[in-house]
Amino acid sequence: MTQKIPVAVLGATGAVGQRFIQLLQNHPVFEIAALTASDRSEGKRYADAAHWVIEGDIPEAVRDTVLLPTQAGIVGARVDVRIAFSALPNDSAQTAEPEFAAAGVTVFSNASFHRMVKDVPLVITEVNPTHLQLLQRQRTQRGWSGGIVCNTNCTVSGPAMSLRPLHDAFGVKRVFAVSLQAESGAGYPGVPSLDITDNVLPFIKGEEDKMEAEARKLLGLLRDDHIEDALLALSAHCNRVAVIDGHIVTMSVELDSPATPADVIRVLSAYRCADVVGLPMAPDQPVVVRAESDRPQPRRDRMTGKGMSTVVGRVRAEPLFGVCGVKYVTLSHNTIRGAAGGSLLNAELAARWGLISS
Amino acid sequence: MTQKIPVAVLGATGAVGQRFIQLLQNHPVFEIAALTASDRSEGKRYADAAHWVIEGDIPEAVRDTVLLPTQAGIVGARVDVRIAFSALPNDSAQTAEPEFAAAGVTVFSNASFHRMVKDVPLVITEVNPTHLQLLQRQRTQRGWSGGIVCNTNCTVSGPAMSLRPLHDAFGVKRVFAVSLQAESGAGYPGVPSLDITDNVLPFIKGEEDKMEAEARKLLGLLRDDHIEDALLALSAHCNRVAVIDGHIVTMSVELDSPATPADVIRVLSAYRCADVVGLPMAPDQPVVVRAESDRPQPRRDRMTGKGMSTVVGRVRAEPLFGVCGVKYVTLSHNTIRGAAGGSLLNAELAARWGLISS
Amino acid sequence: MTQKIPVAVLGATGAVGQRFIQLLQNHPVFEIAALTASDRSEGKRYADAAHWVIEGDIPEAVRDTVLLPTQAGIVGARVDVRIAFSALPNDSAQTAEPEFAAAGVTVFSNASFHRMVKDVPLVITEVNPTHLQLLQRQRTQRGWSGGIVCNTNCTVSGPAMSLRPLHDAFGVKRVFAVSLQAESGAGYPGVPSLDITDNVLPFIKGEEDKMEAEARKLLGLLRDDHIEDALLALSAHCNRVAVIDGHIVTMSVELDSPATPADVIRVLSAYRCADVVGLPMAPDQPVVVRAESDRPQPRRDRMTGKGMSTVVGRVRAEPLFGVCGVKYVTLSHNTIRGAAGGSLLNAELAARWGLISS
Amino acid sequence: MTQKIPVAVLGATGAVGQRFIQLLQNHPVFEIAALTASDRSEGKRYADAAHWVIEGDIPEAVRDTVLLPTQAGIVGARVDVRIAFSALPNDSAQTAEPEFAAAGVTVFSNASFHRMVKDVPLVITEVNPTHLQLLQRQRTQRGWSGGIVCNTNCTVSGPAMSLRPLHDAFGVKRVFAVSLQAESGAGYPGVPSLDITDNVLPFIKGEEDKMEAEARKLLGLLRDDHIEDALLALSAHCNRVAVIDGHIVTMSVELDSPATPADVIRVLSAYRCADVVGLPMAPDQPVVVRAESDRPQPRRDRMTGKGMSTVVGRVRAEPLFGVCGVKYVTLSHNTIRGAAGGSLLNAELAARWGLISS
Repeated sequence: MTQKIPVAVLGATGAVGQRFIQLLQNHPVFEIAALTASDRSEGKRYADAAHWVIEGDIPEAVRDTVLLPTQAGIVGARVDVRIAFSALPNDSAQTAEPEFAAAGVTVFSNASFHRMVKDVPLVITEVNPTHLQLLQRQRTQRGWSGGIVCNTNCTVSGPAMSLRPLHDAFGVKRVFAVSLQAESGAGYPGVPSLDITDNVLPFIKGEEDKMEAEARKLLGLLRDDHIEDALLALSAHCNRVAVIDGHIVTMSVELDSPATPADVIRVLSAYRCADVVGLPMAPDQPVVVRAESDRPQPRRDRMTGKGMSTVVGRVRAEPLFGVCGVKYVTLSHNTIRGAAGGSLLNAELAARWGLISS
Repeated sequence: MTQKIPVAVLGATGAVGQRFIQLLQNHPVFEIAALTASDRSEGKRYADAAHWVIEGDIPEAVRDTVLLPTQAGIVGARVDVRIAFSALPNDSAQTAEPEFAAAGVTVFSNASFHRMVKDVPLVITEVNPTHLQLLQRQRTQRGWSGGIVCNTNCTVSGPAMSLRPLHDAFGVKRVFAVSLQAESGAGYPGVPSLDITDNVLPFIKGEEDKMEAEARKLLGLLRDDHIEDALLALSAHCNRVAVIDGHIVTMSVELDSPATPADVIRVLSAYRCADVVGLPMAPDQPVVVRAESDRPQPRRDRMTGKGMSTVVGRVRAEPLFGVCGVKYVTLSHNTIRGAAGGSLLNAELAARWGLISS
Repeated sequence: MTQKIPVAVLGATGAVGQRFIQLLQNHPVFEIAALTASDRSEGKRYADAAHWVIEGDIPEAVRDTVLLPTQAGIVGARVDVRIAFSALPNDSAQTAEPEFAAAGVTVFSNASFHRMVKDVPLVITEVNPTHLQLLQRQRTQRGWSGGIVCNTNCTVSGPAMSLRPLHDAFGVKRVFAVSLQAESGAGYPGVPSLDITDNVLPFIKGEEDKMEAEARKLLGLLRDDHIEDALLALSAHCNRVAVIDGHIVTMSVELDSPATPADVIRVLSAYRCADVVGLPMAPDQPVVVRAESDRPQPRRDRMTGKGMSTVVGRVRAEPLFGVCGVKYVTLSHNTIRGAAGGSLLNAELAARWGLISS
Repeated sequence: MTQKIPVAVLGATGAVGQRFIQLLQNHPVFEIAALTASDRSEGKRYADAAHWVIEGDIPEAVRDTVLLPTQAGIVGARVDVRIAFSALPNDSAQTAEPEFAAAGVTVFSNASFHRMVKDVPLVITEVNPTHLQLLQRQRTQRGWSGGIVCNTNCTVSGPAMSLRPLHDAFGVKRVFAVSLQAESGAGYPGVPSLDITDNVLPFIKGEEDKMEAEARKLLGLLRDDHIEDALLALSAHCNRVAVIDGHIVTMSVELDSPATPADVIRVLSAYRCADVVGLPMAPDQPVVVRAESDRPQPRRDRMTGKGMSTVVGRVRAEPLFGVCGVKYVTLSHNTIRGAAGGSLLNAELAARWGLISS
């Protein structure tokens, strides 16, 4: 039996950190070797420092783990980790992630800080796996032995998963995307209940810009040392609704060439990514298309493919774009696929491809 | 002091019927003379037959009112009403509304059955008041002494209120509209709680078609004996969310001529309808534009203008439509402006214009 | 490998029926041989007749199963089932359950109709397993070859699970119980969203009486041909709150003899039922006591023990009952432990004990 | 026309401060002369510093009001206020309220800090109006020209309003009270949405102790220089539920002498407080008893008496207390009656009685 790869979770006490820990329990490839937190929690037992907010309990295996500071030197002095999963807030990510990368750790990050940096791959495993190759260039250029790989904003995840096969088959020109996002997307404590009970918040700071920029990079082409943005234009409107987990996005898509709803359903359902087959976190189907008129729904469908599949429904013609128009709805689990689970799958593929420095 | 006009409420026990009764309390122009219900409730006291579901209590004035059957002959034999407000379900509306119209009653209806009928005015008072003139033609053609006036689907109300001044100022070509609709839009019992707690329903039966068709008729031109549809094309995606009252609609609008967000804000804020000034249900401003980044919100803004104003926020450029594009959010109270309150204001204007047969 | 026991699910299309089907997937002892429904759905494919409302999808194995009418003769002519799980509404249960019992089927019922009948065991497996022996007497007296076993009202489940060990250790005299019940307790469509969004319903029809009567029978003693009610007195107040699954009940308990909170925690935590050890649906611990100040919580704790454990928290002194008083909170999953899962465990024990006629 | 009394609102930017400002609009007796905030907001316009979270908009009258620091000297140098309404957090209240009191201002406080202080009246106007007389003693003893009057914890408000007349008529011995409390009771941002969506929190820090202690003081007797606690014993269990405003409390009450539910309904419905008749904030009826089986409900009943009445329902026998037992439900609006509105009414009565130093 192969030995598992020891990993660190950076910023382990927050909501995304908790999800990482949950998904890493009994993981066949990775095992937790270190947990870090902000200075305030350093030195505490995990169970004392973390206010566990996701379903279930703190796993026994980490209850007594003592939290390390989020400093590459200190972590490196204690354990030899080659991979770190970062659930850091942006300001910590800005400085800590490069430090770990320089120290030989490949960081799979949920923070947005480095996403649009030229030589940092922004990857949804089944959407643009080859972008992981940028890691090599990043190492050469920066003299790092580790590296940084970002995963996307949780809201763009479902749209990008559905646009990938459509872009390949028909070309995607323009997209109107409107999100109905879950509370957990804002972290914990996040959205005050007084703001969302019997209410909708029609605005999420920075979210629309991120969706628009990240979609282009995700569907872009890997060039020598950077990603050339895809030409598609996406316009987003982001709303927060009273849902725990699972982001809904309605999509009105203008394709480059004509396609019927039946064509689109066929292409989406047939979409597979050979690179990920057999990886622990990989769902059987990246995109699951439902035929019912009223699906996907967050509570009923978010765990499709253990929370890693994008669920698409209501595929129909978009009359405003004529024969090149299609309308549908996507659902993606924002804290699994759109956060911790997405990072894990990225790391699994990077490990398979030998992109983790040893 | 002028005598009040006696009115009937048809289908008075349901949620919309209750709202009519609530809004007719202390109304300066109308007073309730008859309440009707389905056969099952006929002959009962209102307080015994109605399961009151809106805020507050059943008004004292109607608690003991005995429910009549929804039959023009029987109602007419008891009281002399010239106006009826219809909260009937579609199947009853189909037969009962024409009977009342034939019997000399002008019916202001919330049912969808007659909305797209050629000689039936579909009116939002400030959007297309002149369409009320179709009543005359309806009477001539059908030999009715009364008539039928419909108000719109509750969801198209906010979009239409905002599109009217934009259409006049710049022309509207295409609209992508995505709704986040309140539970009360489905009536009572309506949406099961198990379907909407921690959930979104991405589909509302028939709603998208209604929005698309009604928008064109609302913004259309009154011709001799019909409405010539406006040329604009609207594509809708309708969702149900866990909100009591107040429909949010995000709008991406392509205008015929260029306009900046500042232009749009100016035009929306300046929009007034002289015809309705001074009418009891008319809000001071049909469209209220808010400057905050995170408004309108259903719970906080739905009662703007006593629930009769459309609240617009987040006016910004729509990059996918270039210099002719604008994006914003509308909020409209679906059971006041989008239902009972809208009908009342239609009736108030019809009465002011002498369009109620006496 | 032993052959599985073929079972029927009566009333398979409703919410409880769905839960039965879900829990019977891959069950090591039972396998579904027949599904019945009301006349309206008879002859349809299950996937066409059922509006699936619980998480996940209709299991593949039953999608194409054709629904039989809920008639013992017709079911018996098609398949040889010895066990039926009944999710029937009360009016159907009244007539159909005895028919199946007479035809040799042991019915494990969720309906309330037969619960308080003298020779019908009302059983929570770990609370009063020996009451299952009443089946023998039932068969003798009624000439049935099958029988009827009821499980309890979903709300009394958590209280009874916690009272059993306290009653054994200290005696229970009086209980003030206040419930905060989930929406799913009312079935589907059940509670209208307009009644529960931003609201509490402080009344659930018949529920308080059921809790009070069933608690006494559950903790009662098996006599020759009936259960002698326990002497304890329980007073209930039942509320509905905006929660999907999981009933919270606050408990103020007067014991017969003094006990400290530490005593109570010890007794509850140590509580085991040897009879159920190793049964597929049996949780490791019937009662799980949590130490955190703010648990149990429905969303975070309802799946404890796969939804079969009762979770207790906030154990503290009840000053109004002096040294004999204790206060705590219970949580029980109402559609698993309190309904389908409870019935399954009852059937598993009955099968182990040879109480299923063959 | 009498001149209005100028008042200050201390801690004006938070949720309770906002409610004070809202209720003081167009108040016939008081007018806002000063608003204070923490150092962070000092010197800002109110509209810039306050994140308005209650329904409606910031009143025009205070939008441009410049916030003063919460310091008696600085406020006193600017305006001559005799009354201050305190929405301060406990730590500020501890020092600031006595400073204002020493400076001649009578402070009506929502903070809990001084509630149980011996010479501080803890008052619900209709429950124990005479306790306001303690102000005189407070002034003598402390040498203050102003003073401090506290209002109660928002949760004890409904129970105390209902217990007052029962205590007078029958004597109250023991009370089991279980609350289902609204989100707004925790202020803003308060309860995270991830903690309350599809959930119940069965614990609110410090709340149960407050309810138990305050109930005894509220129903106690005014002695020379202190309040002698009532002998009744109340045991509370406090829960948070997904409701915006309005605390439900279920009550099981043991009286000193027998009373039927009809007796209790009669006494509660007849309860009036002559002292408050005609005061602006006084509701017509302190306690409104509803006959429907499923009321009161927070969303539908919280605005009874403009949010100042306690609504009682489901009055029935409490079998566990025999002929002396009664069970019912109370509802009280926690941010109106239980906070800002309660303070206002206290101040109105104090002014009527000449207890405000001039």
